[in-house]
Order: sequence, then structure tokens, then C-alpha cells
Amino acid sequence: MNNTVKIPLNEIRPLARDVLVGAGYDDAHAASIAKMLYTCQLDDCQSHGLFRLFMCIQTIKAGKIDGAAVPDITQAGKAIIKADAHGGMSLLAMEAAIPQLIEKTREFGIAAIAINRCFHFSALWPEVERLSQAGLAAMAMVPSHSWVAPAGGTRGTLGTNPLAFSWPRKDKTPFTFDFATSAFARGEIELYKRAGKPLPDGVAVDQDGNPTNDPDAAMAGAMLTFGGYKGSALSIMIELMAGPLIDDMTSLESMEFAQGQGGAPYHGEIILAFDPAQFSGGKVAENDARAERLFADIIDQGARLPSQRRFAARARNIERGYVEISADLYADLRALLP
Amino acid sequence: MNNTVKIPLNEIRPLARDVLVGAGYDDAHAASIAKMLYTCQLDDCQSHGLFRLFMCIQTIKAGKIDGAAVPDITQAGKAIIKADAHGGMSLLAMEAAIPQLIEKTREFGIAAIAINRCFHFSALWPEVERLSQAGLAAMAMVPSHSWVAPAGGTRGTLGTNPLAFSWPRKDKTPFTFDFATSAFARGEIELYKRAGKPLPDGVAVDQDGNPTNDPDAAMAGAMLTFGGYKGSALSIMIELMAGPLIDDMTSLESMEFAQGQGGAPYHGEIILAFDPAQFSGGKVAENDARAERLFADIIDQGARLPSQRRFAARARNIERGYVEISADLYADLRALLP
Repeated sequence: MNNTVKIPLNEIRPLARDVLVGAGYDDAHAASIAKMLYTCQLDDCQSHGLFRLFMCIQTIKAGKIDGAAVPDITQAGKAIIKADAHGGMSLLAMEAAIPQLIEKTREFGIAAIAINRCFHFSALWPEVERLSQAGLAAMAMVPSHSWVAPAGGTRGTLGTNPLAFSWPRKDKTPFTFDFATSAFARGEIELYKRAGKPLPDGVAVDQDGNPTNDPDAAMAGAMLTFGGYKGSALSIMIELMAGPLIDDMTSLESMEFAQGQGGAPYHGEIILAFDPAQFSGGKVAENDARAERLFADIIDQGARLPSQRRFAARARNIERGYVEISADLYADLRALLP
Repeated sequence: MNNTVKIPLNEIRPLARDVLVGAGYDDAHAASIAKMLYTCQLDDCQSHGLFRLFMCIQTIKAGKIDGAAVPDITQAGKAIIKADAHGGMSLLAMEAAIPQLIEKTREFGIAAIAINRCFHFSALWPEVERLSQAGLAAMAMVPSHSWVAPAGGTRGTLGTNPLAFSWPRKDKTPFTFDFATSAFARGEIELYKRAGKPLPDGVAVDQDGNPTNDPDAAMAGAMLTFGGYKGSALSIMIELMAGPLIDDMTSLESMEFAQGQGGAPYHGEIILAFDPAQFSGGKVAENDARAERLFADIIDQGARLPSQRRFAARARNIERGYVEISADLYADLRALLP
């Protein structure tokens, strides 16, 4: 980014809130979305930071989301929390359910949240990191839109279906990953298109199901999963766990529901949490040491743990008290202000 | 297999039991191992069928396993079952814990088994399919030995770390997968070596951490995970979930424990189960239909659901009443009989 603008940390949330309230989200939704955008922007996660305001605005303009929906938190099983977003953005429901998930996981050793009937635009690492900050291990999954072909297939059936995981580390940033099970993110294909570059092999098929390196043909055809038939199987698992298991839409249904309109997809999310204290029979310290030895052996050979760039950005941005975004993005965001 | 022997279904378990008891396993362990070998052989899963008797025998000859260990099933959290194998083979502990897991999952909606201090040689699909037969969704993970380098690494730290998942389907074989997170199974590299064939790219590195296509160099160096940094992250998650989370060994520790001796590795296993009735708020039939539509859309485009070859073999072998194994394997097995 050659031409950037520095935004002080304490101005990020107000900026986002003003844009969101101006577009029709109520204060509670605007605050929860602004908090998520802040969390991602603080880590220089540009694709899920302030940039996503455009998707949030597009979603409410499309007319299907309820910008003032009040989520409903109920118990679906002794160790399962149902967070019904009632057609609103997922984040208020998630925020309301996470403290209960922490309680339930401490009570039962393992517990889950099913978020239902929500629009979803956000990364999954913030919620699994909320749980690892509470000393729990956590996993999260969502479907998306059916842009991705299964292994051996020719057309979109699966979503980009991310899987996120976080493991708590004492006095350290957690072990966290959050990856799409598609070989590429949909936005990456758009970037290749804008740059006029051919896609690498194995990323997409055209409308006839043939391998393609052409970004336009890929957008009209289907993306592929990472890792061949294994990545495809994992993606199907995510469809099932975050869809039919929790009484919510598959990526196919979510795509149909959207009727070609843009904005955030409408579907469910599942979050699982695990209490190391109970799973280990109270031997948390010994097992922390065991996990640290594993991490040390990875780092010692020059490999990197996931999310390190993000944690470094977070430390740097907190230290200097601002984030940097492109001047173009900043101008476009200002134009959204009411 | 040009030269094969037909073994009637009712002779598989007695053959396995006789070999196992002759080698020093007690009746209970021999029966649980024989049941597992039967289950795999019935599906023509040759690598985990009767062939594995050699590993079971090698394990007891190495002197570390207790062939008469009595597993101890306790509760570690309200929804967590601890199955302590007490240094025996994992299967008796798993068999004892599975009915309790089904009960706990029906009680809490989500529950888990941590199997500890076990030797482990078996595929994971039999346990997750036991759970899907009971109408639950299930996931299982184990570490192994540190043969696999993390993404960007040069030496073995991770195990082949399989992930298995099964989803119940009404009146149909389940949706099941069970894959190693290594690009290749260790046995596959041995097969390439025997055939004198070079390995494909992306499967292994040599002792200096350089990419290699030479099976010997691969065995001396390290295997790679499937799917690059994503597969590597998934493999690390499996190390953590089936190791430090449950107070058991990582693949590094398991490798050290084995001290270069062959046989089954010693480590833990985690099994998770999910009750669709509770997660879906009682809407099982609607959500079964939703999952079936997903599967139909995959099949309709010429792609295959995982495990179909295995289910076809099962149906055929049950119909004809026998399995076929190679004549060489049969001769070698007969030679193991006391």
C-alpha cells in the first residue's frame, strides 16, 4: 500500500458504527459489527477489516436482513446453546452465546453453540480466540455459497467452508488457524482477474467442468477445494456440521436464498469448545508443556505456526496506536458516512 | 491379486483369535482385535484387515504391550468419558466406552471419549460408523509417529494423524471418511519402493529437508502433509486434540517411546459425538432430507462420496459369504498359528 491513511485505534469503531447506523443497523448490531471489524483491522486482516463495511451495507440494502433483530439464546441440549439470530447479522447472537458456551464447557467438559438464521460476513478466528483466551480449545465452521465443486465434480455444490481452531497457550498468543477449504478464497480470484494474471493449476474449473487458469472462466464455473479428495471430504463435513446438523442451510440453499443478490450469505455456524482441565484430568500444566514442545519443534526447523503475521501486526498496531489502510479505501469509507 | 484364497466369513475371527491368543493376547483382547480385523477385511480394506495381525504380533513381541490389560472407564467431565487402556491395545477400551458415549451424547447433545495409554493399529472409520449406526454424527482423531514434516519444515514432527468422520443416513450406508493428513500413507511409500517407482512430487523430503522422489530418501527423511499449510495446520490440530488435550503423547513422544522398535504406536485417541436430534431442535427428518439433497448434488455431477468402494465390497462379501486375500498373505498367516 503506497498511499495509506493512519487511523487511530480509538477512531475505528466510531467510524464503523456511524456508517452502519447510517445504513440502518441498530446500535447493538452496529456495535457488535464494529467490534469485529476493529478486531480484524487491528491484526491487519485487511480482507475482514473495515473493507467489509461495504458488504455489510450491501447486505442491508438488499433488504433481507433485519438490522434490529434481537437474538434469542436457548438451550437445545444440556451442552448445546442455540443462538437464533432471527434474520440478523450473526455477531450479536455470537456475542450473547459465547459467555454461556464458556460456562457450559466448564460444566460439561465439552459444549457447542449452534448459531441459526444469521447473515455472516466475518472471519472465524475472533470467536475461537475468544474461547482460547478463556483457556478452552475451540473449533468453528460455517458454510457459504455453493461456489466450490467436490473432488471429481464439475460444478459448485460446496461453500468455501472455513475451519477455524484455537488452542490456548499460557502467556503467549494462541495456536490459531482459520482457513477456507477452497483452494483459493473467492476474493483472491477477483484479485487475479484485476491483475490480469492466470490462476495457478488446481484452483478452478470452467462452466463445462474443465480445469481453467482463466479468472473469468473460474468465476463462471466453479472453484476447487484445497487438498484434492481429502479437502473435499473435509468441506462436506463442514456443510453437514454447520448445516443439517444444526437445522440450517447448506451452501446450495444459501446460494438459492440469495437469489443472485450480493452481500453476506445467510446460513448457520457451529462452534465447539473443549475444556483442557477436564479432558486432561486436571493435568493442564504438564500438557501445556507437551504442546509447547511440539510448537518448539516446528519453529526450530524454520517452519512457522499459523497466524504469526497477524499477531505481529496486532502487537505493532497496539504499540503505535493506529492502523494503516489504503487511502482509496478510506475515501470510499468516508463516502459511506451519512 | 492373481493368486487368492477365499476365507468364509465365519472363519475370519477364529483365525485371527487363534493367532492372537497364541502370541499372548488374552481372550478379551483377542476377540476385540479379531472383531476389528473382521470389520476391515469384510470391506476389503486390505491394509487394515488380517494383514494387521503381523503388526499385532510384532507389538506383543516387542514386550511393551500388556496383552491382558483391563481397561478402566471413568468420567472425566460430565460429558467426557476417559477410557484408560492401561498399556493394552486400544480396542477393548474403545468397545467398553462406545456404549457410554452413545448414552452421554443422548444425555448432553455432545460428548467425547478420550482413550489413553493405548497401543493403536486400527482404522478409525469402524468407531465413527458405530456411532453413525446409532444415529449420531462422529469424529475421531489419533496421532502416530513423527514421520511428517510441518509445512515449511525439514524433518518429522507430526504423525500421519488421520481424521475420520461419519454422518448417519436413514436406510443407507453413512457418509464416512477416514484419511491420513499425510500426503501419502507410510505403507504407500513402501509400495513405491518395492515397485521401484519414483514418488510423485510433494510427498516427501530427504534427510536434508529437500524435496525428493526417492522412496528410500523419503523413508530416511520426512513425509509431507496433504494440502500444504492447510493440511499441516489440520495435522497440528489433531496432535493437540488427541495428545495434550487428553493428557496423552504427541507423535514425537510416541516415536521416542517406541525406541526404534516396530509394532503399533503408543498414544491416545479422541472421539467426539453429536446428536442431530438435539442440535437440530428435533427436526431430524427435514435435515436428513437437506443432507440427502447435498449428497445427490455431488453424485449427480459424477463425483463420488467417500467410502463407496468399501461399502460395495461389504455388500458383495456378505452376499457371497467370503472374503478374498492373497495366497501369500494367507500362507504367512497360517505360519503364525501356534
